[in-house]
Amino acid sequence: MRKVVLYIAMSLDGYIADKRGKVDWLHGHGSDAENIDTYSDFIKNVDTVVMGWNTYRQVAEELSLHDWVYKDLTSYVITHRPMRSTDNIKFVRESPCAVVRRLKQMSGNEIWICGGADIIYPLMQNGLIDIYHISVIPTVLGSGIRLFGNLEKEIPLKLVHTQIYNGITELEYVCR
Amino acid sequence: MRKVVLYIAMSLDGYIADKRGKVDWLHGHGSDAENIDTYSDFIKNVDTVVMGWNTYRQVAEELSLHDWVYKDLTSYVITHRPMRSTDNIKFVRESPCAVVRRLKQMSGNEIWICGGADIIYPLMQNGLIDIYHISVIPTVLGSGIRLFGNLEKEIPLKLVHTQIYNGITELEYVCR
Repeated sequence: MRKVVLYIAMSLDGYIADKRGKVDWLHGHGSDAENIDTYSDFIKNVDTVVMGWNTYRQVAEELSLHDWVYKDLTSYVITHRPMRSTDNIKFVRESPCAVVRRLKQMSGNEIWICGGADIIYPLMQNGLIDIYHISVIPTVLGSGIRLFGNLEKEIPLKLVHTQIYNGITELEYVCR
Repeated sequence: MRKVVLYIAMSLDGYIADKRGKVDWLHGHGSDAENIDTYSDFIKNVDTVVMGWNTYRQVAEELSLHDWVYKDLTSYVITHRPMRSTDNIKFVRESPCAVVRRLKQMSGNEIWICGGADIIYPLMQNGLIDIYHISVIPTVLGSGIRLFGNLEKEIPLKLVHTQIYNGITELEYVCR
C-alpha cells in the first residue's frame, strides 16, 4: 500500500512556524558550501500532496497561483471554501483522515503530508502516518505553532536514515 | 568561563518524562551490538551537576542514597526542604539562575544541568545555557513533561556534533 509521509521542518523545540511568520530560521547555519538537495531525493517518490487551506495560501503566495509549485503532483487542499478544482489541485471538504484513507486505497506513489498542524494532528492520532521525515532546524524558537499535539498513545519509531547539512539534522523514521 | 551544559534525552515530540513514569522508551531500538558510551565522554568534562528535588529523588531511588551515583561530582539540589548538605551533595534554596550564576563565577569544569523542566526553563529564558546536548529518542510519546516552555525570544544554535546509536540521535549545539 502507498506510504503516507510527514515531511516537514521543525525547530529543536518542536515549532513548525514562527508566530510572526518569519521563515529565515528554516535555513539553518546556511554555511555549507555545497547545498545538499534532499528535497529532490524525497520528492522523486511522491505523486500526491495533502495540505490545509493556510498552507495552500502560503505556498500559493510565494509564487503566483498560475505557477503552482507542486504542478508535477496531485495536490489535495482540505477546505470548506467553495473553490473550483483544477486538473492537479483538488479542493476537498473531507476530514484529513477520510482524504488520506481514500488516497491510500488508490494506486500511486507516496503521499506527502505537507501541513499545517491541524491536518497533521488527526493523522498522527489515528496512526495514518507511515514515515516521519523531520528536519530539525538548529534553533529554539520559543513560540509558534507546535508540530506535535497531545496523543492518546505513544508512537514508537525506528530511525532509518539521517542527513546533516547547514546544521540541520534530517531524521527519517518509520513506525515500529 | 565554565560552560553550562543541558545534557538530556527527549522524545521526538519534546517530552523528557512519560506521564506514567516509564523509562523503557529512553533506550531507543536497543539493537546496536556495540553500545556507544557517549555519557562517559560527556561526564569527563563535568565536575558539577545541578538538579531539582524531583530529579534528585528519582536518581536517589535508583540506587540507595549511600551510593550516590554522581559521587565524583559536586551535586547542587535546589529545594526549599530543610536537608543537610554533605561534602558532595549541596542542598540550596536559591533560584536556578542564582545557583548557576554563582557556580559560573567559581573556577572549575563544565556544569551539567540535569533537570527537571522547572530548573531548565528559567536558565533557558535567561540565556544561561551554553551547550544544548539533546538525545532525541525514536518515539512520539504523545504526552508527559515537556523540555521546552514558551520563551520570550529565539535562541539560535550552531550544531557542533552528532552521534547516532540504537536509533537515538545525539545533537550537540552551542549558542550562536
